[in-house]
Amino acid sequence: MFEFTLEASSSAARSGRLALPHGTIETPCFMPVGTQGTVRALSPNDLRTAGASLVLANTYHLHVRPGEDVVAQLGGLHRFMGWDRPLLTDSGGFQVFSLAGFRRVSDEGVEFQSHLDGARRFLTPERATEIQWTLGADVAMAFDHVVPGVADETTARDALERTLRWLERCVERHRELLESWKVGKSDPFQPSNLPTFPQTLWPILQGGAHQALREEGLRRILEMGSWSGLAIGGLSVGEPKPAMYEMLAALEPRLPPALPRYLMGVGFPVDLVAAVERGMDLFDCVAPTRNGRNGTAFTPDGPVNIRNAAYREDARPLDETCDCEACTTFSRGYLRHLFQAEELLGLRLLSLHNVRYLIRLAGEMRAAIRDGSFARWADAWRRRYLQPELA
Amino acid sequence: MFEFTLEASSSAARSGRLALPHGTIETPCFMPVGTQGTVRALSPNDLRTAGASLVLANTYHLHVRPGEDVVAQLGGLHRFMGWDRPLLTDSGGFQVFSLAGFRRVSDEGVEFQSHLDGARRFLTPERATEIQWTLGADVAMAFDHVVPGVADETTARDALERTLRWLERCVERHRELLESWKVGKSDPFQPSNLPTFPQTLWPILQGGAHQALREEGLRRILEMGSWSGLAIGGLSVGEPKPAMYEMLAALEPRLPPALPRYLMGVGFPVDLVAAVERGMDLFDCVAPTRNGRNGTAFTPDGPVNIRNAAYREDARPLDETCDCEACTTFSRGYLRHLFQAEELLGLRLLSLHNVRYLIRLAGEMRAAIRDGSFARWADAWRRRYLQPELA
Repeated sequence: MFEFTLEASSSAARSGRLALPHGTIETPCFMPVGTQGTVRALSPNDLRTAGASLVLANTYHLHVRPGEDVVAQLGGLHRFMGWDRPLLTDSGGFQVFSLAGFRRVSDEGVEFQSHLDGARRFLTPERATEIQWTLGADVAMAFDHVVPGVADETTARDALERTLRWLERCVERHRELLESWKVGKSDPFQPSNLPTFPQTLWPILQGGAHQALREEGLRRILEMGSWSGLAIGGLSVGEPKPAMYEMLAALEPRLPPALPRYLMGVGFPVDLVAAVERGMDLFDCVAPTRNGRNGTAFTPDGPVNIRNAAYREDARPLDETCDCEACTTFSRGYLRHLFQAEELLGLRLLSLHNVRYLIRLAGEMRAAIRDGSFARWADAWRRRYLQPELA
Repeated sequence: MFEFTLEASSSAARSGRLALPHGTIETPCFMPVGTQGTVRALSPNDLRTAGASLVLANTYHLHVRPGEDVVAQLGGLHRFMGWDRPLLTDSGGFQVFSLAGFRRVSDEGVEFQSHLDGARRFLTPERATEIQWTLGADVAMAFDHVVPGVADETTARDALERTLRWLERCVERHRELLESWKVGKSDPFQPSNLPTFPQTLWPILQGGAHQALREEGLRRILEMGSWSGLAIGGLSVGEPKPAMYEMLAALEPRLPPALPRYLMGVGFPVDLVAAVERGMDLFDCVAPTRNGRNGTAFTPDGPVNIRNAAYREDARPLDETCDCEACTTFSRGYLRHLFQAEELLGLRLLSLHNVRYLIRLAGEMRAAIRDGSFARWADAWRRRYLQPELA
């Protein structure tokens, strides 16, 4: 369980399989974001049809509402949201630092004000680990201190050191929870297909835009123990895009090949391709759903804003290469009408298409990596995607 | 085509089949309302899964946006909205009288102000018929003058007379359109499974809450020619509920058994049962979707407001007798969370459930009528539905 099998690589780009308690996923893998225990506007059936294999849910949001105890009472996160495939929960760190109004960071943890009702709450590495344990996703993330991408070295060093100290506490608490779980599961006749462990914990590498800090952080994380995966956080948070690409390229040769690499918060098509080129395996982003709700659809020829008057009587599908419900059932003219008329179905159809688009994109990259054509594929993909829209 | 076959009756309640160009529907039949060419929050797949056999779309709304020419350009209403089963369009009369700001009625037609952009527009019986012809639904409705349920006899008489004069003009225009269609379709090798006619036109009986007017209107409509169906309009528009039930009971013996009877705008569960008891066959209402979006779900034990704090940790399905996605996949606790968190999926799941509920309700009534147990069934149904909620 939690074993990552590297199947093919093409320069830095890799393709593999990761075994999780609720199923095996193939990488590169894009995971849709179900912030509040639902991928906005989409049902679990939609997600299955779109080919989603792994979904992310936000610990901070579910902790604040409805509360992890309610989720546990309703059968845990999988049962709660009707999703029987693998789930990953983030640690709440990113949200505490991006959403909360007031916050006070100490070594103990973070005191913050809920974005919902203003109530003071306190998150520590131990609490974040316990909340995620209670939610019950396949993969939990360590609680981290996130700083803006433009943070200076002193600030970034401070956050990195705190994140590393917090990581030790997350690991310790997660180990305790696993031990007590094993005690509860001491039945010697346990069927062999039950997972050995119900959840794994992944560390998050911070260090801002400072390469030396990132390298040091990586070294110290790897020295801390053996992991089943590794996340790179604090990128795509305000720094220029080339800085992110350079950082990934610099880190890649230092990353152990046997660990899946999760680049947090990245999910625009161009970034996904660039990150896979630089050896990343897993991705999450609200871009497909948020953009979908704004009427922007990803297509092989670049983004399309479906509200555009040019599509008024356009009988063509949104993306003729796509097999999603939006593209196989409806015309651009109808989709535009749904947005003009502010109909809920429009939000759903474009969200569905964009999620499907990114999952197909990951699938195309997997295929290209496996047959050794990834570099050519990426060039051709970029030429088409980045050209001025001809559609 | 357009033939109605009465299969069973139990006192006034009837069950039958109506053959339409896009399929045969069974009555009693509830049709979900797709005001703007989409049943709010639901996809055609959702509607098929819910068992919808006939969907209503609003001529007024589609005329104002995107315009019937755009719909025609995109392949007609069926293709436009991705719905391959029967469709019915209303005439626009009800919306002109309920939605438009300014309106001026003359015998020629109605001048009104669009509720969208305030532009002055003009609808006549001929235009309403042409628009519906262009949209291409299986069933079109005659353009009528609707008055409030509490209108006095003079006002109701005036509207009835105008509706009858307008009906003659609708029929004439519809006949012309059919004739020109036949000329265009003069291919002698036309496959025999093509419909003889692509669309039928149904009259709407008005007359307010005045029984004598209703009876006179009915007589004059029936004298005007042979119809394939008959709608009763202007009920459920502000008059007390008992007045509607009495009117239906009084009209029923005068209605030709061979015509399907469409009671417009009725669709709360109690009204549906009462109307079937009084011989009605077809129904439409926004209640299931509008109530669903407000968090109210129909269940056999009466309405449930899913926002209620009592459902916070309730692991039971919304309606344990229901086979819809909401009831088979999710707990009440999760559905409540979706509403608390203002998630789009909640709007969709409760809309889906309510539509499925009414379609199942119509199906149960069909079955009870066929096996002769309708009176007993209706008593038992009411006892359970109207009791204080025990759920």
